[in-house]
Amino acid sequence: MDCLYFDNNATTPLLPQVRDAIWPYFAEHFGNPASLHQPGRRARTAIETARAQVAALIGAEPEEIIFTAGGTESDNFALLGSLETLRPQGRHLITTSVEHLAVLDSCRYHERHGGSVSYLPVDASGQIDLAELEAAIRPDTVLISVMWANNETGVLFPIDAVAAVARRHGIRFHSDAVQALGKVPIDVRRTPVDLLSLSGHKIGAPKGIGALFVRRGTAICPYLHGGHQEGGLRAGTHHVAGIVGMGTACDWIRPRLCQENERQRALLRQLEDGIRAAVPEVVRNGDPHSCLPNTLNLSFPQIEGEGLLLGLDLVGIAASSGSACTSGSAGASHVLSAMGVPGARLHSSVRLSLGYQTSEAEVAALLQRLPAVVGRLQSLSLPADVDLSLFDCPVIECLLADHD
Amino acid sequence: MDCLYFDNNATTPLLPQVRDAIWPYFAEHFGNPASLHQPGRRARTAIETARAQVAALIGAEPEEIIFTAGGTESDNFALLGSLETLRPQGRHLITTSVEHLAVLDSCRYHERHGGSVSYLPVDASGQIDLAELEAAIRPDTVLISVMWANNETGVLFPIDAVAAVARRHGIRFHSDAVQALGKVPIDVRRTPVDLLSLSGHKIGAPKGIGALFVRRGTAICPYLHGGHQEGGLRAGTHHVAGIVGMGTACDWIRPRLCQENERQRALLRQLEDGIRAAVPEVVRNGDPHSCLPNTLNLSFPQIEGEGLLLGLDLVGIAASSGSACTSGSAGASHVLSAMGVPGARLHSSVRLSLGYQTSEAEVAALLQRLPAVVGRLQSLSLPADVDLSLFDCPVIECLLADHD
Repeated sequence: MDCLYFDNNATTPLLPQVRDAIWPYFAEHFGNPASLHQPGRRARTAIETARAQVAALIGAEPEEIIFTAGGTESDNFALLGSLETLRPQGRHLITTSVEHLAVLDSCRYHERHGGSVSYLPVDASGQIDLAELEAAIRPDTVLISVMWANNETGVLFPIDAVAAVARRHGIRFHSDAVQALGKVPIDVRRTPVDLLSLSGHKIGAPKGIGALFVRRGTAICPYLHGGHQEGGLRAGTHHVAGIVGMGTACDWIRPRLCQENERQRALLRQLEDGIRAAVPEVVRNGDPHSCLPNTLNLSFPQIEGEGLLLGLDLVGIAASSGSACTSGSAGASHVLSAMGVPGARLHSSVRLSLGYQTSEAEVAALLQRLPAVVGRLQSLSLPADVDLSLFDCPVIECLLADHD
Repeated sequence: MDCLYFDNNATTPLLPQVRDAIWPYFAEHFGNPASLHQPGRRARTAIETARAQVAALIGAEPEEIIFTAGGTESDNFALLGSLETLRPQGRHLITTSVEHLAVLDSCRYHERHGGSVSYLPVDASGQIDLAELEAAIRPDTVLISVMWANNETGVLFPIDAVAAVARRHGIRFHSDAVQALGKVPIDVRRTPVDLLSLSGHKIGAPKGIGALFVRRGTAICPYLHGGHQEGGLRAGTHHVAGIVGMGTACDWIRPRLCQENERQRALLRQLEDGIRAAVPEVVRNGDPHSCLPNTLNLSFPQIEGEGLLLGLDLVGIAASSGSACTSGSAGASHVLSAMGVPGARLHSSVRLSLGYQTSEAEVAALLQRLPAVVGRLQSLSLPADVDLSLFDCPVIECLLADHD
């Protein structure tokens, strides 16, 4: 059975163009870009091309792009590098309660080391209140970090307004744009954001590569110490193939962004409508009016989310209960909890996320397979532990064999 | 003209086995290992296989291997993560003056934040003195970090003896083994090292992947904060293809290590003998009796090292003047400076480093091309700026065109 991949917020398959572009950097063009010789220069040239491609997608200058190992490193670098640089001015930072763990855990690290953090609450739709942001600002506030779009619900935050508040108060502004990049337009010429975290593997590029946009004139301490790579701001041998892949993906997306946004939005509507028709009691989590075009977070009453995921997996549907980075960890989604989603709905949530490769046929196939799984689970009333032997699905055995 | 690649300490071409092994993880097996569904589980299984392969090469248990983005991150993690954990016991660390910048710059960071560091000197052969190590130990010493082998000279340090000193004093011991891995035997069952930095791209695996061996029972704070990957010790989506590549490289090397060590040692002897025959005044830097089998650091009197590298590059020989990570930075090698190498020799050094793919034919070809370049540079007496028009080499023009 073909796998229907609806977990593109966790990671995406490589774009075919990216696959073609990166391969030479695993073969003949293997030089270290820090080397002076010809193989090194070739790798360096490739990096600078990719830097310009990434910059172009967000309206930045190439020299404002620092390559990192991924979104998590970018978030750590942006927050902890900034907080170190700005320490003489103050140690208070404002963020939201629904950020990715890479931001939240960096905040907790900052708190353990004597800094202070205000976590803005969100309302039932997952939105922050700008008045609460204003109210949280203190004389020692040196940084505001608000994600561009939430990874679990897809909710888009009022980034322009947040940036304006930050600018008005002279406070540095960072946004984790890992889930927004390539899905909605981002233009740093228009939005006065100082730091922006980006990731490759969410946009059809390889894993292990990311970037941090650092607006010109924004002083920041390096987070990885060592060689002189990236203008001394990020040590470590460049992941050349990853960088080339990220540049290629950004270059592919740039002229297609609006069209892809529309296409995925239409597919998502089909998906939601189809599921609602089959399972009328389903509830969508997060503001549907300010949302990524590809993300649908749904609660299926009376079904335990992990059980549903397993059931979907057994019929070849890959979905998620929230952030992949917290999978396997105990407890409910901190995002839905912060939205005040009640217990039963909280534990019955599933995230479906589309990608560039998602087709109408796949949406139709999902709509064919999903209702039966939901129906079985509802009729079985097995909210916690699903008895797999009750599924009469031919792929169960091979999938179980593959399970570990 | 074929490129003769003699800069394997900077980076290595992928092993063919690695190329074959990683490709599926850029194609059909693209899942996020943190996801619960089938594509995620497949990625997770691949990671655990690779973890066991890396562990096996150094005699570790799989759960003692933490994957990182490379040697630099491993060094930062080992040092700064340990220093944070051990802060209640003390803030003094001992290292050598010839470490990689990833260690030295982490030390400087520690000093800027109130910690203290003793930098052991080296003698003219690049060796440390164990008595000086003992003498440097203070009641607040919590960490000793001594590299397994130096990246510029190839000098092997007396790691077993250093580890014994550390163990006797109850001090944690870290070694940057990035240049030693896959070249000399490493067995953590025999050598009581607590932390070991490893890198993929020095052993025929991709760039952007590394690992830290953390001996069981060694408490260490995470350095990248966020998701629960790597048992909570290293956040960030796994670089699956890189991990698979690193595992495959380790698995390939393990049964071949001794034989490759001998093969490269013999080739290196040919290389050194051949160069000495053509350029008798050449001087080898670093202890030749305790050295990696693949590294030859030579000074060519009366020739400026960068000029020689450029000259070699123009005839298709890729070599280095020292660490790739410091290329382009001003100043002479900190390693040779610490060895007390005098000025003229200091600025005329070139590092030639072999790899698994280096053949006898390539050594012979290098020996054919190198003497003419050295001879021309010596006769021109152009120690600083080489006038390229004086080379009558057919590849000059195309290489110059490619230079930027």
